[in-house]
Amino acid sequence: MARERRRERGRRTVGYAVVGLGHIAQAAVLPAFEHARGTSRLAALVSGDATKRKAIGKRHGVPTFGYEDLDDVFAREDVDAVYIALPNTEHAACAVRAARAGVHVLTEKPMATSEEDCRAMIAAAEEGGVKLMVAYRLHFDPATLETVELVRAGKLGEPRFFSSDFSYQVEPGNIRTDARLGGGAIWDLGPYCVNAARYLFGAEPIEVFAMEALARDRRFHGVPEAWSVTLRFPDERLATLTCSFGAAPVDTCRLVGTKGDVRLEPAFEYVGSLVRHLTIDERTRTKKYPPSDQFAPELVHFSRCVLEDREPEPDGWEGLADVRIIEAALRSARERQPVRLEPIERRRRPRAEQAMHRPPVAKAGVVHAQAPSQ
Amino acid sequence: MARERRRERGRRTVGYAVVGLGHIAQAAVLPAFEHARGTSRLAALVSGDATKRKAIGKRHGVPTFGYEDLDDVFAREDVDAVYIALPNTEHAACAVRAARAGVHVLTEKPMATSEEDCRAMIAAAEEGGVKLMVAYRLHFDPATLETVELVRAGKLGEPRFFSSDFSYQVEPGNIRTDARLGGGAIWDLGPYCVNAARYLFGAEPIEVFAMEALARDRRFHGVPEAWSVTLRFPDERLATLTCSFGAAPVDTCRLVGTKGDVRLEPAFEYVGSLVRHLTIDERTRTKKYPPSDQFAPELVHFSRCVLEDREPEPDGWEGLADVRIIEAALRSARERQPVRLEPIERRRRPRAEQAMHRPPVAKAGVVHAQAPSQ
Repeated sequence: MARERRRERGRRTVGYAVVGLGHIAQAAVLPAFEHARGTSRLAALVSGDATKRKAIGKRHGVPTFGYEDLDDVFAREDVDAVYIALPNTEHAACAVRAARAGVHVLTEKPMATSEEDCRAMIAAAEEGGVKLMVAYRLHFDPATLETVELVRAGKLGEPRFFSSDFSYQVEPGNIRTDARLGGGAIWDLGPYCVNAARYLFGAEPIEVFAMEALARDRRFHGVPEAWSVTLRFPDERLATLTCSFGAAPVDTCRLVGTKGDVRLEPAFEYVGSLVRHLTIDERTRTKKYPPSDQFAPELVHFSRCVLEDREPEPDGWEGLADVRIIEAALRSARERQPVRLEPIERRRRPRAEQAMHRPPVAKAGVVHAQAPSQ
Repeated sequence: MARERRRERGRRTVGYAVVGLGHIAQAAVLPAFEHARGTSRLAALVSGDATKRKAIGKRHGVPTFGYEDLDDVFAREDVDAVYIALPNTEHAACAVRAARAGVHVLTEKPMATSEEDCRAMIAAAEEGGVKLMVAYRLHFDPATLETVELVRAGKLGEPRFFSSDFSYQVEPGNIRTDARLGGGAIWDLGPYCVNAARYLFGAEPIEVFAMEALARDRRFHGVPEAWSVTLRFPDERLATLTCSFGAAPVDTCRLVGTKGDVRLEPAFEYVGSLVRHLTIDERTRTKKYPPSDQFAPELVHFSRCVLEDREPEPDGWEGLADVRIIEAALRSARERQPVRLEPIERRRRPRAEQAMHRPPVAKAGVVHAQAPSQ
């Protein structure tokens, strides 16, 4: 069995095949291996683009493969895990295939584009005896985790409402503009806002309503430009969020409690500093966090989970929790009515102990891939 | 006819009866007469509370009356106008009564608690030949109007989405907690957020959805604690807002355009400075506006409209435009579905020329009235 084979190896570092060499893989995931050296090792690259394979394989000194070779990649002795950086609609198939081959799965968010796909991924990981993690980089970020902790410690009193705006001008031709690939701001930006509402409230919403703003220009292929979403959480708590691909860059979230409020702005980006504005008793304190490599901690955490046989946080259920909300939001927008969500219980939440700081990565030259915005 | 009588007087200042001596009247409206002296004169005070009448009448040196004397007040030679600072549900009856007596009407916002009442007020003012204005103090505020102008001038590109949070902890026993008096955060705070969305977009919404968060403590008498509202504007523009009486004070609104965004925080308050954060091409400039008396400009503008026979901006239709949205939001929350709004046209919008700065008023001692929050 693949599972036995993997476990018997007893390697001290986890070898990763990075599948999909789009902008995020080249600019953030590959450079992060430098900062994850004790636990994680880049073992192979998979891309459908020969130019990328050649240039990036050479840069990192690892073998490269096309998608047609995926099963061979997963069978390699030096490949223990896969980092899936494919278009959103392709996460599930790749994850299931890896899990069946006994390869541990770290996938970009959104985990998938349907709850059904998420469940298939979770089941495949269980059956294959492999770890499954969704790449929520902020679950290791000090600004985020300190904020989660201060909310949990009651510094704001009881959390009452949440709001978030996340937008940028998407570049024409970006895969995020294509409905067939799981594009749209709600799939790209929504997971940040929804995940933030969930980790700040420490709870799961029970109702969702969404309104969409249709595309007005030719950048968009079957996806709306923006969504505004309202979430109802238990104990009469509310959250609003707007995600847009057709507006200037804004990146913020806020939690207001009975005694104070906290605003992160920027809240979600991975290049610069995150900044926190904490207001208690009408006195505001601002804290600027140093820029950091937010991707290496994911590799380090996941590799440790593989090596030490621990369950990662964020796990597959965490990814599913966001996907089911976004799926319900899309249904709400389509049917023009609020959608009830089944109550679910999540015991695992990001905690302060997960915080990990790594220095920022150098800006990498990117081959045949485009940043989502300028 | 009352109307003839009023017009024939040819006075150079407008005499006001202030009806309702709650916190806002005592702390803001009455002190504002000092800064509106050239055009406006306090002529009478009306309250149901004998202690207030005695103390405040003495302080301002004007005659005082009970509600039972209202028709006598409106018949007085020195009363040309009424400033209505009654509970929200009582604005309409008082306004209609004043208008029928030929007395010009300046009423606090919300104009009323139903579109029907707003229409009755507008009709009564037309029939009585009197001016009708709703006390939107920010329509004269430099921070607000400069922001409206920069949006209108296209500095942010095309406006795409709006968001706003407005909250405070309401004091127990405040009239804003009583459903029978038109209480609730959506009536108290909602008009600011809804009005801001409308003046920043320069447009009227066509659909509204609202979710309410029910009261969890004994401060509330038949009103929810909070509402989150989504508005759809023409041309695929979205707005979200949350109003809460059960959370720490937050006071902010933001408009995001295709090229930049503007955030006002504080956006709506009348005591301190309003602050504007304007971000264009990822460069943020912050402008702090000096504190000012936001009530005197309302008196000055309305008095000039009376004296010069001009139509005030904000007029009754402006008040109605917000009330119909809030009424629809309440219906949406009750029926748990979005509500379509009839398209209406508003040609009159607040403009830069309306800006008026007056120095802040001294803090007034308040008799038998309570600030809405500590």
